[in-house]
Amino acid sequence: MISAVDVITTKRDGGRLSDEAIDWVVAAYTRGDVADEQMASLAMAILLNGMEPGEISRWTQAMIDSGDVLALPDVGRPLVDKHSTGGVGDKITLPLAPLVAACGAAVPQLSGRGLGHTGGTLDKLESIPGWRASLSTEEIAAQLADVGAVICATTPALAPADRKLYALRDVTGTVESIPLIASSIMSKKIAEGTGGLVLDVKVGSGAFMKSLERSTRLARTMVEIGTAHGLPTRALLTNMSVPLGRAVGNALEVAESIDVLRGGGPADVVELTVALAREMLSLAGIDTDPAPVLASGAAHEVWERMIAAQGGDPSAPLPVATHVEPVVAERSGVLATCDALAVGIAAWRLGAGRARKEDAVQAGAGVRLLVEVGDRVEAGQPLLELHTDTPDAVAGARAALAGGLVVSDDSAERPQLLIDTLRA
Amino acid sequence: MISAVDVITTKRDGGRLSDEAIDWVVAAYTRGDVADEQMASLAMAILLNGMEPGEISRWTQAMIDSGDVLALPDVGRPLVDKHSTGGVGDKITLPLAPLVAACGAAVPQLSGRGLGHTGGTLDKLESIPGWRASLSTEEIAAQLADVGAVICATTPALAPADRKLYALRDVTGTVESIPLIASSIMSKKIAEGTGGLVLDVKVGSGAFMKSLERSTRLARTMVEIGTAHGLPTRALLTNMSVPLGRAVGNALEVAESIDVLRGGGPADVVELTVALAREMLSLAGIDTDPAPVLASGAAHEVWERMIAAQGGDPSAPLPVATHVEPVVAERSGVLATCDALAVGIAAWRLGAGRARKEDAVQAGAGVRLLVEVGDRVEAGQPLLELHTDTPDAVAGARAALAGGLVVSDDSAERPQLLIDTLRA
Repeated sequence: MISAVDVITTKRDGGRLSDEAIDWVVAAYTRGDVADEQMASLAMAILLNGMEPGEISRWTQAMIDSGDVLALPDVGRPLVDKHSTGGVGDKITLPLAPLVAACGAAVPQLSGRGLGHTGGTLDKLESIPGWRASLSTEEIAAQLADVGAVICATTPALAPADRKLYALRDVTGTVESIPLIASSIMSKKIAEGTGGLVLDVKVGSGAFMKSLERSTRLARTMVEIGTAHGLPTRALLTNMSVPLGRAVGNALEVAESIDVLRGGGPADVVELTVALAREMLSLAGIDTDPAPVLASGAAHEVWERMIAAQGGDPSAPLPVATHVEPVVAERSGVLATCDALAVGIAAWRLGAGRARKEDAVQAGAGVRLLVEVGDRVEAGQPLLELHTDTPDAVAGARAALAGGLVVSDDSAERPQLLIDTLRA
Repeated sequence: MISAVDVITTKRDGGRLSDEAIDWVVAAYTRGDVADEQMASLAMAILLNGMEPGEISRWTQAMIDSGDVLALPDVGRPLVDKHSTGGVGDKITLPLAPLVAACGAAVPQLSGRGLGHTGGTLDKLESIPGWRASLSTEEIAAQLADVGAVICATTPALAPADRKLYALRDVTGTVESIPLIASSIMSKKIAEGTGGLVLDVKVGSGAFMKSLERSTRLARTMVEIGTAHGLPTRALLTNMSVPLGRAVGNALEVAESIDVLRGGGPADVVELTVALAREMLSLAGIDTDPAPVLASGAAHEVWERMIAAQGGDPSAPLPVATHVEPVVAERSGVLATCDALAVGIAAWRLGAGRARKEDAVQAGAGVRLLVEVGDRVEAGQPLLELHTDTPDAVAGARAALAGGLVVSDDSAERPQLLIDTLRA
């Protein structure tokens, strides 16, 4: 007989949880036999005392076993997916999935909605008139076979233990545990049934993990879990100290993604999209260079079919905010800092994000950057635009940006985007 | 605005909780605004990362402030109390309170019921026909003025935060935190309004704390809390590797206590009763040697008045178990070990203790020791008696004793009872 207190005190005292203890506690928590306060205490003990790779892998499997695995039939293409730990302006999934599909793989991207200062992929796509996030397993399979890419809502049947545990961690100060973060992400991706996985692990002020050391540990832990579960997994460590691209917000990011799919768009968004596509195609065993495919417009064709397949009108005008105003430079010089976290919070306050799960987001709200770090600016020149349907929110957005935009006399360079690549 | 997650993450990351944070989180938990899962996570973070003396003192005050303070009028004698961390056969409160009262102090002993292998003082006294544990504040005050000693149930109005937190810690693996144990004990004793406090902190197999190092830390922490709150506090560290006295169980311990109050009884019970009485009288400023008072029978007179004042009949026969059987020595030699935990669990299984709060206890059940460590025994000689109303429980009691009673060829000595004394 295993008891919750035995499991908690084992981890509290620095011990290793047995496979049986992990299987039992995750299943018992999912069905309600282990109480929230017991799992909260265990989560804090795990956060402070850690788990070994074998424990993390077993914990991940127990979360997968708490629900269904997406049973996709053969779609005639190799399945490969990508997951980002989340950043400001991180719309990469939008051009990436069609690009990888255009190169011959199938991308089953099951996503979530955003909470806090980083936006959610579904929130962005829902700014497209008519587009719907919820698909059945049959619809997902058909779209993968036909279009090669699907971005849709995850189903409640996948890893329900993770959903329950994540909500608990959110209110008990136990989010920041690398074993719990890694097993949360990987349990959903493994349950989704992808054949390969590329992780985009962000580092910097706008990322969930601020330090390279912790981001690297998270990336390595996830690669180890994938490997232990027979899922070929790689991780890129990428910079999130400045926003990705020039658009932060839902429809604003869709528009920028379409620019990239048409062969234009900001250089950093293109660079990261291509880098991630290369890793995904390598895992899928497809020897195609994605850069010319992106430049050719072939990925844009897949995008239009992907949006249309989910009821969206790819040619419909995107929503725009009713109120736009600039933030101007207070002095002349060089833009030395454009802090990702400050911009993310500003966009969130303007209405692009939500504070609570039940909140709605504004499709048109957000921030458009007009200059980049390293650019010469003159006093009074607009640095960025604030977009919102609720002008009352502007003061809060300006307050969030205070200190986040620094113009100085020194020269400055945009930080290098790709920091490292981890392979099994 | 303080949030529960802020308080949790501060302690999680090794920080010091501010006075405001402590006041807020204890009050908000008491009124239900901080959820059980949040307090459980915080309790685990406190257990693993500790609290500084200033934090522990403030936490104690916040628990006191969660309820009422017992408002005792002047009873004409100095108030002084004692608290034991609990041991096997620890009936010392029963002779001690009347003895200290017989010497001129007033002892307001608010007690609880037992859970697990150590018995509760109220459970023991409830084996006396007619005796009742619940008294009003007016009754407590009147009895203190008249008799000088009262042993009764604590009231739900004292430190309600502690009651709620203790129940939570019990199911979340967070009992074993010295700051939380110390603040739990001291909040109740300070709220009770005593003028001085002597702590009996047990060390050894039958104690809650098995190691001298942790027992010493607990004792020092409690003395520090008392001092910080203006309550003169001392602690004795005493041995709990063998049971105290020769009786373990409810009525069995009452009978042994009466032997002591009549000037007889086991030497260790007398020694500890007198040692604790000396410290209590010293704190109360009373210059009387308790040893001759105990021998004189004066304490026994107070006992009879104390029991009668609470409805008990001090001359009524005590309940006895329906079934008694011996455990005999398997070989000849010297009794080298009589493990307190083994005896405590045996008595518990025989019916003297309870596994859950709502369980009843048997008045007559328990263990009577017939020999002491160091005594010469012959094969087949009874070492102890098992007393129970439920003979089915005997097999479990015998199993608990296996390995706990060791007869060897070597000589053995009873361990020294008094280990150390801590004063502010």
